[in-house]
Amino acid sequence: MERHFERDLEELKEQLLLMGGRAEANVLKAVEALRRLDEPLAREVFADDHIIDRMEIDIEERCLRLLALQQPLARDLRFITAVLKINNDLERVGDHAVNIAGSAARLAPAPHLQPLVDIPRLAKLAGGMLHDALDAFVRRDTERARRLCREDDAVDLLNRQVFDELIRYMTADPSAVPRAMELILVSRNLERVADLATNIAEEVVFIAEARIIKHHAEDEEPDDQFSRS
Amino acid sequence: MERHFERDLEELKEQLLLMGGRAEANVLKAVEALRRLDEPLAREVFADDHIIDRMEIDIEERCLRLLALQQPLARDLRFITAVLKINNDLERVGDHAVNIAGSAARLAPAPHLQPLVDIPRLAKLAGGMLHDALDAFVRRDTERARRLCREDDAVDLLNRQVFDELIRYMTADPSAVPRAMELILVSRNLERVADLATNIAEEVVFIAEARIIKHHAEDEEPDDQFSRS
Repeated sequence: MERHFERDLEELKEQLLLMGGRAEANVLKAVEALRRLDEPLAREVFADDHIIDRMEIDIEERCLRLLALQQPLARDLRFITAVLKINNDLERVGDHAVNIAGSAARLAPAPHLQPLVDIPRLAKLAGGMLHDALDAFVRRDTERARRLCREDDAVDLLNRQVFDELIRYMTADPSAVPRAMELILVSRNLERVADLATNIAEEVVFIAEARIIKHHAEDEEPDDQFSRS
Repeated sequence: MERHFERDLEELKEQLLLMGGRAEANVLKAVEALRRLDEPLAREVFADDHIIDRMEIDIEERCLRLLALQQPLARDLRFITAVLKINNDLERVGDHAVNIAGSAARLAPAPHLQPLVDIPRLAKLAGGMLHDALDAFVRRDTERARRLCREDDAVDLLNRQVFDELIRYMTADPSAVPRAMELILVSRNLERVADLATNIAEEVVFIAEARIIKHHAEDEEPDDQFSRS
């Protein structure tokens, strides 16, 4: 029985990683569709997201079954409830990929105003954070998870730069407004992906240490509430 | 023991409702700060959000304690895991209130370009949905919860109208770009609040019927993937 439960937990972890890999891949695919203004590729993102949605439901049902049948305690309980939350976070990552693909599809009919530079960079940062968060989860590597929570600032900064630049762009050339606006939305979606990666990293610490670090419960530094979000 | 557990569940519900009420109030306060361009009121929103964050941590810890100590089954298990998720959703509602208050604070130094009409309407719709979702949760009213999931379309439509109008506005008057941009962000934050209310309504059905209705698992109608989100 005990060994069977261990195997169930292992399978649950594998399934979550599979879903995470798909969600990450779909974000990168959506940004690639945007970069290349490739509508068929954007459509692939929509189709892939249905698979991610199915995976979320499967994982949720599996978690509830384990909670009901095994009545786990302490660390196993924290593991399963954390999987429930990470599962939810990954599904939201998938939604952000869909939003980005939507922008790609809407922008596809006309060429870019200028080559995309910062947005692919932002995608690489956010995708890397998501990848690292899932890796920290697999290895129960709390050091790495804590480091990750601090990386989020770089993403916020880049998102802010993209925003400010596009605002200047729109102000200088009003005909660019609709297209620049789409890029602002894409940038914000990527920033949210990084936020979700941070959430996952927080769960890694929680599983390992039964310690809730979100909302800076650890240090209580005042946030800069006026920063754009 | 059994009766004690019933009381624990009742208390958990009360606490979640309290948090929901605060989150809803904070969204409305943020929009009021925006409407009146009232920076001190915007600052109150930031302060209140810290209370909401604390409440989230308390509720989460309480859920985990109940799962560990009571090892609940079936409906009680679904209830507690749903509370964990609704808790998370409400905390995000609080974050959206903070984002809106941030826009209010940034816009406060100069008068509005024109009186706000659609955004307060959107706030009323989204706040109403959140209120109804929590009410459906208390009453375990799945009919109301299902109705609510359909109301989300009205919010999406209004958000879309606000977006299109502000895009036209920015195109016509480039000097309005930075201010109009803030309003687009506010509108999107409100649309997300309505999405979170829909999530909560889905959980209500799930608790009552052990049936996952999200991602339209029930009807599998194709979404309009090209709609703006």
